[in-house]
Amino acid sequence: MSDKKPKKPQKLRARLPRGLEDRGPAAISATRAMVEKIRAVYERYGFEPVETPAMEYTDALGKFLPDQDRPNEGVFSFHDDDEQWISLRYDLTAPLARYVAENFQNLALPYRSYRAGYVFRNEKPGPGRFRQFMQFDADTVGSASPAADAEMCMMAADTMEALGIPRGQYVVRVNNRKVLDGVLESIGLGGDENAGRRLTVLRAIDKLDKFPVEEVKKLLGPGRWDGGEEGKGDFTKGAGLNDDQAETVLRATSRGFVAGRLNEDGSGGINNLDTVVLLRSCADNKILHEGCDELRAIAELVEASGYGATSTNPDVRVIIDPSVVRGLEYYTGPVFEVELLLETKDEKGRPVRFGSVGGGGRYDGLVSRFRGEPVPATGFSIGVSRLQAALTMLGKLDTKPQPGPVVVTVFGGEIAGYQKMVADLRNSPVDPSRPDGPRIRAELYLGNPKHSLGQQMKYADKRNSPCAIIQGSDEKAAGKIQIKDLIAGAGLTSIEDRAEYLRKQAEAQIEVGEGDLVAEVQKLLARHDVRWG
Amino acid sequence: MSDKKPKKPQKLRARLPRGLEDRGPAAISATRAMVEKIRAVYERYGFEPVETPAMEYTDALGKFLPDQDRPNEGVFSFHDDDEQWISLRYDLTAPLARYVAENFQNLALPYRSYRAGYVFRNEKPGPGRFRQFMQFDADTVGSASPAADAEMCMMAADTMEALGIPRGQYVVRVNNRKVLDGVLESIGLGGDENAGRRLTVLRAIDKLDKFPVEEVKKLLGPGRWDGGEEGKGDFTKGAGLNDDQAETVLRATSRGFVAGRLNEDGSGGINNLDTVVLLRSCADNKILHEGCDELRAIAELVEASGYGATSTNPDVRVIIDPSVVRGLEYYTGPVFEVELLLETKDEKGRPVRFGSVGGGGRYDGLVSRFRGEPVPATGFSIGVSRLQAALTMLGKLDTKPQPGPVVVTVFGGEIAGYQKMVADLRNSPVDPSRPDGPRIRAELYLGNPKHSLGQQMKYADKRNSPCAIIQGSDEKAAGKIQIKDLIAGAGLTSIEDRAEYLRKQAEAQIEVGEGDLVAEVQKLLARHDVRWG
Repeated sequence: MSDKKPKKPQKLRARLPRGLEDRGPAAISATRAMVEKIRAVYERYGFEPVETPAMEYTDALGKFLPDQDRPNEGVFSFHDDDEQWISLRYDLTAPLARYVAENFQNLALPYRSYRAGYVFRNEKPGPGRFRQFMQFDADTVGSASPAADAEMCMMAADTMEALGIPRGQYVVRVNNRKVLDGVLESIGLGGDENAGRRLTVLRAIDKLDKFPVEEVKKLLGPGRWDGGEEGKGDFTKGAGLNDDQAETVLRATSRGFVAGRLNEDGSGGINNLDTVVLLRSCADNKILHEGCDELRAIAELVEASGYGATSTNPDVRVIIDPSVVRGLEYYTGPVFEVELLLETKDEKGRPVRFGSVGGGGRYDGLVSRFRGEPVPATGFSIGVSRLQAALTMLGKLDTKPQPGPVVVTVFGGEIAGYQKMVADLRNSPVDPSRPDGPRIRAELYLGNPKHSLGQQMKYADKRNSPCAIIQGSDEKAAGKIQIKDLIAGAGLTSIEDRAEYLRKQAEAQIEVGEGDLVAEVQKLLARHDVRWG
Repeated sequence: MSDKKPKKPQKLRARLPRGLEDRGPAAISATRAMVEKIRAVYERYGFEPVETPAMEYTDALGKFLPDQDRPNEGVFSFHDDDEQWISLRYDLTAPLARYVAENFQNLALPYRSYRAGYVFRNEKPGPGRFRQFMQFDADTVGSASPAADAEMCMMAADTMEALGIPRGQYVVRVNNRKVLDGVLESIGLGGDENAGRRLTVLRAIDKLDKFPVEEVKKLLGPGRWDGGEEGKGDFTKGAGLNDDQAETVLRATSRGFVAGRLNEDGSGGINNLDTVVLLRSCADNKILHEGCDELRAIAELVEASGYGATSTNPDVRVIIDPSVVRGLEYYTGPVFEVELLLETKDEKGRPVRFGSVGGGGRYDGLVSRFRGEPVPATGFSIGVSRLQAALTMLGKLDTKPQPGPVVVTVFGGEIAGYQKMVADLRNSPVDPSRPDGPRIRAELYLGNPKHSLGQQMKYADKRNSPCAIIQGSDEKAAGKIQIKDLIAGAGLTSIEDRAEYLRKQAEAQIEVGEGDLVAEVQKLLARHDVRWG
């Protein structure tokens, strides 16, 4: 027998796992408002809702994550009972592909659907970079038409405006994977054996946002030292292109081509169709030309619908932009990205554009994996969580806390009477002229009933309540109730005149007969324009 | 070098993992409507929203699942990067406890919050039993008052009625864990050493719904043969109580006590307060009496607010019912359950009550685990997915498919003109007298543009479109557009008179000038009362 004392049971530490977030009332109500607005746009475009579960067989998700260095990482996976691997979805596209393939015979094709939901990434979290976040997607499966791609871009623009982002403060950029593929083939980087180098090129181009062109050129060529000069900082190996090759790649991915860019004197503007012509001339290659033909078709539809750019139109909405590179591997044709043009500060306080809040593209191979026949598809995904951060910054989201409930305070042992007041309030409309309208929010003080009135009022203040109801034993005997107006009360501190203060203070707490409680609370709510919901 | 042929790439099979479901437009819109109605009730009671992520550290969730035979199973878990175990939440209560403990200093106490979300159970799926389903919870943390429990029960009743379930077709049953604990202690089954036997008793009582009392008595006593007589079927070991002990347990958990039960001649009804008195007399035990005191306080509040049962009130809403046993281990006091009284059929076609669609109770120990100080708490959870199945069966949910979008059909190569029609429709309100109201849903036919008009019309039919827009080259030359009324068209088959048929058929397809497209579609939508949303 051991004489050691039994271990004291260890107290658990309450902690949110890394890279996840709890969300309070303001964030939740903002998300709801956003989702409703996005939904209205998507439904206007004829998309219908569909939802898949949060998890899928891992093989159905494929290895399509951006980070190819860790092909088996990036997702949360577990062994199921039957020894199959299951993973939490990392986007909403791969599960949709599974859904469409499984229900192919029963769907009206082209199948046009939308869905919002959380996705999960098992990645290193960082500031603003969460391991669970919400996306809102729309997809058209079974259409090879560039009209389906063009529509996604225009819908993205409509969505930004529905969310209150003014025209000119966002832009939808469009490119085509075939453009860079064709250019790379033309400089000898085609074929499976060059897949690694093509990926390095892709990543270098993706840095055009962050680095000056000459730095990107180093990444296309021999490589780049982090510290800016040889031997300084880490070395990133380049794609090994020679100068000519690098120049060709940079020309084919240059923002110098994009529409709506004017010289300072107003000259020199080009439109989306011009961009496609310039792009086509980058190389004489079949894949490049095929990509440009698709871009031209998109540009034509965009221009015809008034979303395009001209030299005289500052409010360009959809731009053909060869610098767009989307990280996901599964794209096969047009790719798009919505960018917010408003500025924010980076971690060093320098102004930077807010950047991408959504994107998408054509993924003709994703459904085909299951069907063994070609199934063209295109889709668009909004990063709801990221967009919400942007809209909050822009002041486009109502983050004012809602008024709390009317709080009925409690004195003495008998609470049934207080409970009845609460029930009467809850059963009454906020606005007596609208008996079927929203009803009054109310609650009994449920803390320790021995708490002082001061403690109970402190709770009501913390809850942002419009008023508190008070009935001590004297009032009860007299059939009276006190209503304390907490909104008017909060305004008292700003009053400097003593007489005025006393008058307002008296107004802020009134005594009414028991039978008048509901009507008096309704008047108070009307006076302060309190509307919940 | 091997001369084996490379393996043909295996085609992936698209399959939903077991026990999960995909959800279509009708189910999604029904859930949305339900969640909005529940939310309105919870907010009226003064609860505010809060959301936690889908996963938590496994130790924070605890081992509280009903199935104690497999304590480490029942949840989906994985190792995180830092070697800590993370699990998908299996309910919304344990994560809330973590949230409250972590943010204790910043919350207004009592902290009253609600949340809806998916929870995940790694269990054997069965009919109607999914591994991912939605719950909608409300909790009051920091109140020991039975008023907090009583409120949960009344809110559950209000919620059922807000969802369209008539009074009398549901009931909220209330019990207290301390009642059975006290009775068991009084018959010598107290103490840690009897924890296993107490659990066996709990499970036996839980079978009162399914088995006659004499069968449950066998489970309380020596055990029970599945087949009904000795040696037949499987044997379930009993709790080993003697006859007297078993009778005491059965008396203390009997539905014979519950309020609102009348004899056929109308006599003999008892109310909730009578039930508590009867229950209290089951044994002379401190824990039992404490439980009964709490139940009496709940009963008084319930009666005072008019939710109670009397012998003359058939529409009882909240009943003290000692037979209620909730599976989750963490409950420490009052427990409640909402039951739907409507009948459905079991797998053998026999009528059975639909049963429980939600429940909850007091869990004073769950937050304390983190805090090392007592933190009383009570909560209520609605099984949204299960309740939705019941409401669908009751015909209380609108499951009629929404009208699809107006479909603009396509002929020939030039689609920019068709695209413009779509854009014009989408930019116009359904009701011209409400320019800011919902806009027309419309889409371009995005299938193969070489598809015949018949194929395109088939798509529009499948999409449940109100009308299709047609413009062939002749019409285009003449500046005309055909509008085909698919709702009127669908009614044609029921017309027997030939002249009438031809007249209606002619009406169902009209030719209009290009400039009149929007106005004519608006008229058609008004004629058929098409309202999206």
